[in-house]
Amino acid sequence: MTDYKTSRRVVMAGFGTGLTALAMPALASGDAQPARKLGYAIVGLGYYATQQIMPQFVGCEHARLTALVSGTPEKLERYGAQYGIPKTHRYNYSNFDSIRDNPDIDIVYVVLPNSMHAEYTIRAAQAGKHVMCEKPMAVSVAECEAMISACSKAGKKLMIGYRCHFEPYNLHAIALAKSGDFGPTRIITAEHGFNAKPDQWRLERPLSGGGSLMDIGIYSLNATRYLTGEEPVEVMAMESTDRSDPRFTSVEDRIDFMLRFPSGILANCVSSYSSNHNAYRVTGTKGWVGMEPATSYSGQRMSVNLQGEIHQVTLPFSPKTQFAAQLDHLPQAIASGIEPRTSGAEGLRDMRIIEAIYRSAAERRAITLTAK
Amino acid sequence: MTDYKTSRRVVMAGFGTGLTALAMPALASGDAQPARKLGYAIVGLGYYATQQIMPQFVGCEHARLTALVSGTPEKLERYGAQYGIPKTHRYNYSNFDSIRDNPDIDIVYVVLPNSMHAEYTIRAAQAGKHVMCEKPMAVSVAECEAMISACSKAGKKLMIGYRCHFEPYNLHAIALAKSGDFGPTRIITAEHGFNAKPDQWRLERPLSGGGSLMDIGIYSLNATRYLTGEEPVEVMAMESTDRSDPRFTSVEDRIDFMLRFPSGILANCVSSYSSNHNAYRVTGTKGWVGMEPATSYSGQRMSVNLQGEIHQVTLPFSPKTQFAAQLDHLPQAIASGIEPRTSGAEGLRDMRIIEAIYRSAAERRAITLTAK
Repeated sequence: MTDYKTSRRVVMAGFGTGLTALAMPALASGDAQPARKLGYAIVGLGYYATQQIMPQFVGCEHARLTALVSGTPEKLERYGAQYGIPKTHRYNYSNFDSIRDNPDIDIVYVVLPNSMHAEYTIRAAQAGKHVMCEKPMAVSVAECEAMISACSKAGKKLMIGYRCHFEPYNLHAIALAKSGDFGPTRIITAEHGFNAKPDQWRLERPLSGGGSLMDIGIYSLNATRYLTGEEPVEVMAMESTDRSDPRFTSVEDRIDFMLRFPSGILANCVSSYSSNHNAYRVTGTKGWVGMEPATSYSGQRMSVNLQGEIHQVTLPFSPKTQFAAQLDHLPQAIASGIEPRTSGAEGLRDMRIIEAIYRSAAERRAITLTAK
Repeated sequence: MTDYKTSRRVVMAGFGTGLTALAMPALASGDAQPARKLGYAIVGLGYYATQQIMPQFVGCEHARLTALVSGTPEKLERYGAQYGIPKTHRYNYSNFDSIRDNPDIDIVYVVLPNSMHAEYTIRAAQAGKHVMCEKPMAVSVAECEAMISACSKAGKKLMIGYRCHFEPYNLHAIALAKSGDFGPTRIITAEHGFNAKPDQWRLERPLSGGGSLMDIGIYSLNATRYLTGEEPVEVMAMESTDRSDPRFTSVEDRIDFMLRFPSGILANCVSSYSSNHNAYRVTGTKGWVGMEPATSYSGQRMSVNLQGEIHQVTLPFSPKTQFAAQLDHLPQAIASGIEPRTSGAEGLRDMRIIEAIYRSAAERRAITLTAK
């Protein structure tokens, strides 16, 4: 029997104060809004920057694209022309530091290969700019700490590009997991992976810092943290990589891991570079909330199981994409003088766990995580 | 774009020689069939025996219910009357061994609490009867070995009640995983659990030998083995049990585990006594085969993802249930002089892994499994 009231409550949960509060946790009505659109310089004009991020400024209320940084003159020319970025606002890696003299640049968005995140974040902060940095935040805990320190010293904000924290279905899943409708969460499963194409920087350890875990498995990891609101205390991991596959000479293919959370929740996670996965499920004592795809650029699908009845959940169309919401969040945080929702501390927490996952797989034992 | 030919191949795979061969692997057309229906004595008249197994003999070609064994006279009276079992064919645990003198009993089906499986299997073999024993086969590797030895010494067959090996959707999933249509398998996820009711023998370690893993997690484990056709070489496990929950004073609640297989496949498994799970998914480089519910008594649902297109797969109605097929298989194996598909060796293999899972969780390290 469908309990209409209950299922309706689930579908609508979070549309009152709940979801609003989650979507804009620290921006209450009295908080400051940016007086003008803040200007972003995009550093690194690869696929993600040019095809996913740059087209999104058109949907922003508080952000605009004002500068480009690339080592490839042809890219600066092409995208500069496309987005109306004057030659004075196009930079390469030699003259990058002169962005300090450009008042149209408020924020530097680092979309470089992982191993370059730390250097360009720190240089941007030293040039007096706020920083948005793609995930993974860097390739080591030490780098993350240096980035946080540099931004703090410069008095600049640092935000990590965890776009799912600005995606309505993911925010709804968090609200549902916390609603109590499904009972206390007992198990989370999270799977992320894709079949990696050969010959790209992701597969070169000096650039990527690691394989599927750094790139896509981090979505499984981060999801378990935002869906629980807790920090894991123990991890166990198992890696499987065919080293005769030319894609995997320096980075891992698959690395699965289990996490234990303080409340007793167990999470079972997949990270793969040789199979497609994009899903998670939060199972409580009374049912579950599932997403598949869960963390895609668009097209999220949610279903819930309440007391054995499965329902699809469709949210009202949101005119603002997760990308635009993320780009707008940092200007809002700057104007309000608060820490961004996905600050450097958030990226550092994932990186501590990533290092523990790699260590667990290498040492074939559980690694205890201590709160910091 | 739907590739109709490909998807049709998937849906139909196994309906030619494939599935038939799987369903009856060692019973070729020339093999012997039982000349008469073999008689079963059911030992232990609990819920599973009386509500699930006993009603299934009506659908059997080679098996019939001929005797009952219980310590509760009222149960013997009630079910004896219901199934037309004469008083001479009703036994208790004191006179159990006199079944040796009853020629209407060919097979003893042990449906007792786990810790009693070994004793009654061995006593049945010593009484000259073949044995069907419920899973888990016993509560230790040592017991499993003693059971195999006793049946071998008595020249009697031993089969373990892994009904999924006789369930059409599960057999189809095996065929699909092996078909190559989904590429080589890279990841398996398998989740089994239910919210355990208090005050039952499953929650008392002296009777059950363990918690969710022995009872329901074994479905996750066994599925990874029949879906790969391989034996795992390494296991890591993490347990989470709230010892203040009166259900879990002596057995575990949740125990998740990861398995590594020789071909590099990783399996990520859930076992829970505090949340509902019944699913698995086999993911290859080109797509996946999913089942949810996967190992239920009935109502299996299969879907496949081929190159990003998801299809539901519906098999033709099968007049013979997994229960009846299992009951019929042992008489066929006896008549043909072959080992049952789910022999004592199969139960022993699971039990070795179960012991390793418990050890991994206790010692917080990976346990290497060696082929035996």
